[in-house]
This record gives sequence, C-alpha cells and structure tokens, in this order.
Amino acid sequence: MKTRDRILQTSLQLFNEKGEPHVTTNYIADEMNISPGNLYYHFRNKDEIVYFLFLRYEEQMQAVLEVPKSRSLNMEDMWLFLHLAFECIWQYRFLYRDLDNILGRNKKLRIHFRRLLQRKVQTAIDICKGLAEVGIMEANPEEIEALANNIAVIATYWLNFQGIRHEHPGREEDHLGRGVYQVMILVSPYLRQDMRELLYRLSHDYLD
Amino acid sequence: MKTRDRILQTSLQLFNEKGEPHVTTNYIADEMNISPGNLYYHFRNKDEIVYFLFLRYEEQMQAVLEVPKSRSLNMEDMWLFLHLAFECIWQYRFLYRDLDNILGRNKKLRIHFRRLLQRKVQTAIDICKGLAEVGIMEANPEEIEALANNIAVIATYWLNFQGIRHEHPGREEDHLGRGVYQVMILVSPYLRQDMRELLYRLSHDYLD
Repeated sequence: MKTRDRILQTSLQLFNEKGEPHVTTNYIADEMNISPGNLYYHFRNKDEIVYFLFLRYEEQMQAVLEVPKSRSLNMEDMWLFLHLAFECIWQYRFLYRDLDNILGRNKKLRIHFRRLLQRKVQTAIDICKGLAEVGIMEANPEEIEALANNIAVIATYWLNFQGIRHEHPGREEDHLGRGVYQVMILVSPYLRQDMRELLYRLSHDYLD
Repeated sequence: MKTRDRILQTSLQLFNEKGEPHVTTNYIADEMNISPGNLYYHFRNKDEIVYFLFLRYEEQMQAVLEVPKSRSLNMEDMWLFLHLAFECIWQYRFLYRDLDNILGRNKKLRIHFRRLLQRKVQTAIDICKGLAEVGIMEANPEEIEALANNIAVIATYWLNFQGIRHEHPGREEDHLGRGVYQVMILVSPYLRQDMRELLYRLSHDYLD
C-alpha cells in the first residue's frame, strides 16, 4: 500500500477509536513508524487528512444513495438503503462524533456535508414516493417530506445521541443496528399492514 | 440586578448570538463594561459560566418535564410539552449548537445532561402511555419506547440539523416551530383519526 493510503487508513482507525480531537499528526506518524516530515510530505495538516477521508466517505455514501430507476421499488430497497447508509456512517463515525467541531473548522467540508445531507433527504423522499406508487406505503407528499427529514436527523445523530445517553456505551455495533431499527419505526406506521408485520419480524431478527 | 446575574445574562446572550467557542471572558467583561478581574471574582473561568447557565436551563426544563398526575392527559399536554421544551432549548440554544464540544470539556455537565435526556425520554413515554390509556393514541409499549427515543433525538438535534442544512439559516425562530412540527409528525400516525386531523390543523396554524 502507498504511504499516502496508509496514512489515511491509520488516521481513520485512530480517529474512530480515540476521537479526532485527541489524535495529532505526530500520533499518526508514531503509530505508522514514519517521521512527521514524511507525513507532512503527503498532507499539510490534520484538517487535510480529515478532508480527504471525508471525500472517501462522500464517494461511498453517494453510491449508497443511488436509487434504482429501472424498476419499481420494494421494501428491501428501503432496508438495504438504511443498512448500507448506517454501515457507511459507522466506518467514518469520527466525523459524526465531533460533527459541529469538524464542520466549524472547515468551510469546504461544511459545503460538501450540506450537499450530501440534502441528497440523503432527497433519496429518502424518492424511496418513499416509489413505495407509495406501488402501494406498499400510504402517505401524502407533505407526510413524505416531513418523514424524510426525520429519517435524515435520526440517521445523522443517532450515534451522538447514544453516546450522550449511555455512560458505558457498550458495543457500538449495537447502536448501529438500533439506528436502522429507529428509522424503520419512523416508516412503519405508513406501511401496508402486511408489510408492517414483515418489517417487525425483520427488525427483530436483525437486532437479535 | 446583581453583577453575578448580569454576567450570566450577558454571557447567555453572547453565546447564543456568536456561538460559545467564539466568546471569551474578556469579550463578556467588555460588553458589560466591567473589568476582567471583576468577572473572575464571580466566576473562575468560562466553563464555570457555562455550567451555571446549564443549571438554569436544567431547572427550567425539569419544570417543563413535570407530567400532570392528578388528571388524565390530552392532546394539549403533548403540544404544550413540546412547545415549552423547544422554547427552553431555544433560550439556551448555544448549548445545543456546540453540544459535543461543550460536553466533551466538562464531565459534570455531561452527567447532568445525560440525566436530563433520560428524563426527556421518560416524560415522552409517560405522555404517550397517558394518551394511549384514554384512547387518543394507539401504540404498543415497544412502539412507544422507540417513538419516545425518536422524539428525544429530533428535539435534541433539530436545530443542529437545520444549521448544517441551510447555508443562510434565516430566522431561527422558524426552525423552532418547524421542530415542534417534526415531532408532531412522528406522533401523528399513532393518533386516532379525528385527533390526527386536529393535529394537522393546529400544526399549520402554528407554522404560518
């Protein structure tokens, strides 16, 4: 692996484990057994590392947010969308844990993050509309828009909320599954009865 | 007004306007036309000011979270609860705008904030149970618990979400009303049909 990629990979791991504010560029260089000078040859400072990690996150999330257009949507699309979105957030969870802090420091990143958030809301709207068209879901456009916003808020802040709520957060993977569940609970009242039951069964299998 | 109270009031105003990270104790003293020494006579540092402001917020929020026990609940209780809760968050909005940052710096505050968050979830559960008992709402205990958590997440992070989503946030008061609306939308699918219609009407009056 190229040094540049190794720096990004090591940084991502350390940021996720320790929290981005507690990891310095020297710490990263130490962990990799390279000199700080070598690290600075590839990245000007820590914010630049954060920015390039964000670009990877953005690319991955944009792929998740592609709604299939060639066929009608089904429940599995919603499920898969949420699962992949939360998985992607989980991989780059350091961004979310100190979101205000990181976005406050970096204007370019803030603009990208905003665009991505709008994209998420739009994808949630598209999926809900698709499900409404085939009769799986029953909701009017106003409900769908409000629902899509709530989906985006829960998806964005669920890990932070769990972090504040529990003194000993336990396995964070559990929070992730619980996050998908919390979003599904948002959607479920708008589903057709049989789909709602299917959803409950799937949720419980998924959480156990 | 006593100097101590004036310091707290001025700090609250500046924190809300400029963001807590951008306001120093010197800035606060300047604004009040007192010497930094006078300020330090009352508070050791900025974190102590933040802490005492939080205690005021906590006291006010705890009063909001008192669910009436002597009579059965109705829709107006839910509405009033949300309206007062958001109003209280709005008054101390600086806490929420840099929540990770502020809680990360101050362990005592983190513990208090966690307790308050648990209290919020519990109050949401109590209100939903009360509404279910009198037949206004229809939801099983599992749905109520998941719903209460979603209510707490939306109430806690709505302002942050709006702040990230909009480049020019516009009047923040609008975000507040929109926050109440977003929570009501969470609750509405579980309401009896006539109550649901009442809710929609009230929401629109409230937002216009």
